[in-house]
Amino acid sequence: MTDKTALTPATHTTPPAKFSHGVKKGNILQTAGQVGFLPAVDGRARALAGPTLREQTLQAFANVQAILEEGGATWDDAMMIRVYLTDVDHFAEMNEIYNAYFEEQGLTQPPAARTTVYVGLPSGVLIEIDALAVLD
Amino acid sequence: MTDKTALTPATHTTPPAKFSHGVKKGNILQTAGQVGFLPAVDGRARALAGPTLREQTLQAFANVQAILEEGGATWDDAMMIRVYLTDVDHFAEMNEIYNAYFEEQGLTQPPAARTTVYVGLPSGVLIEIDALAVLD
Amino acid sequence: MTDKTALTPATHTTPPAKFSHGVKKGNILQTAGQVGFLPAVDGRARALAGPTLREQTLQAFANVQAILEEGGATWDDAMMIRVYLTDVDHFAEMNEIYNAYFEEQGLTQPPAARTTVYVGLPSGVLIEIDALAVLD
Repeated sequence: MTDKTALTPATHTTPPAKFSHGVKKGNILQTAGQVGFLPAVDGRARALAGPTLREQTLQAFANVQAILEEGGATWDDAMMIRVYLTDVDHFAEMNEIYNAYFEEQGLTQPPAARTTVYVGLPSGVLIEIDALAVLD
Repeated sequence: MTDKTALTPATHTTPPAKFSHGVKKGNILQTAGQVGFLPAVDGRARALAGPTLREQTLQAFANVQAILEEGGATWDDAMMIRVYLTDVDHFAEMNEIYNAYFEEQGLTQPPAARTTVYVGLPSGVLIEIDALAVLD
Repeated sequence: MTDKTALTPATHTTPPAKFSHGVKKGNILQTAGQVGFLPAVDGRARALAGPTLREQTLQAFANVQAILEEGGATWDDAMMIRVYLTDVDHFAEMNEIYNAYFEEQGLTQPPAARTTVYVGLPSGVLIEIDALAVLD
């Protein structure tokens, strides 16, 4: 029996629905889609880090990273990052933020594969990101 | 050599194209995207369970579950559930149906991670769901 | 320590951003989303294989296949193929191209599962495809 573990970082609320922010089973870790919500504060509704793509992208990355770390993983273990944007015109800026962010992470392994598509998201949300990781 | 097995539940048609409703290889199981089609009846075109989000969501869940079970898995093994909706206004109702459904499943492991995005789907189809599972 | 390997086929450019065209770690291989770009030519911007769905689909398949092969995998190892189209009206034609393509591949294992959704893509791009594979 291999246990499936729910990954709920201290920065995250108890999931508001019957899903987990992340799960790990064996060496496979999957995060739920993360948007630019600021860390949870008891008794307050979660709020976006800001209205801009930059604020939301960096916060969404931080939220994915918190889940990876809760599962004992790092960005080095990430295999696939799915990026959902709402506007094709955001691609160049997202890429710039994405590249700078991963430069700063000091990866020691090749970066994850990535697919970016343009979808609808809830009002005010400009980006959603999820990641699949394979641990050592 | 690890065999890849096609998962074709009795409720499903022989796949209409060169894809499998689900596949299992080693301990990894992946379902194809499932919409709210009723169980297959020989000689009849597949029909949606109904026009409502509730009918289609519950049928899509049943269709994913049939594939999981065909592969010897259950919802407890699901790591990631991708939910595709067509309308942001359907999110609250989907969440309610989602929560009630998984309450009823009596999960013994944490629920799967989830990403929900809003996309185009064929006419009349309101929801599509796929799942990645890791077996024990 | 299991190494994560970047998969960069000779037909592909060095990735233009901090992502990999594909990665392999242990027996898991994931490709990035591939569109219908022709093989890379030094000093030239990548160009689409053509304006039609057929041209772009076959080229996107070739691009995914090159990544699979770079990782020592084949379509037989593919578990999940995600197809992103921009127009519901392209579904029937895509399916026809898809079926013919996989007939020609002479698969010895069941075909991958598949999810097709309709999203926005960069101007002129009609299809994007990514694949998850599990090697023997």
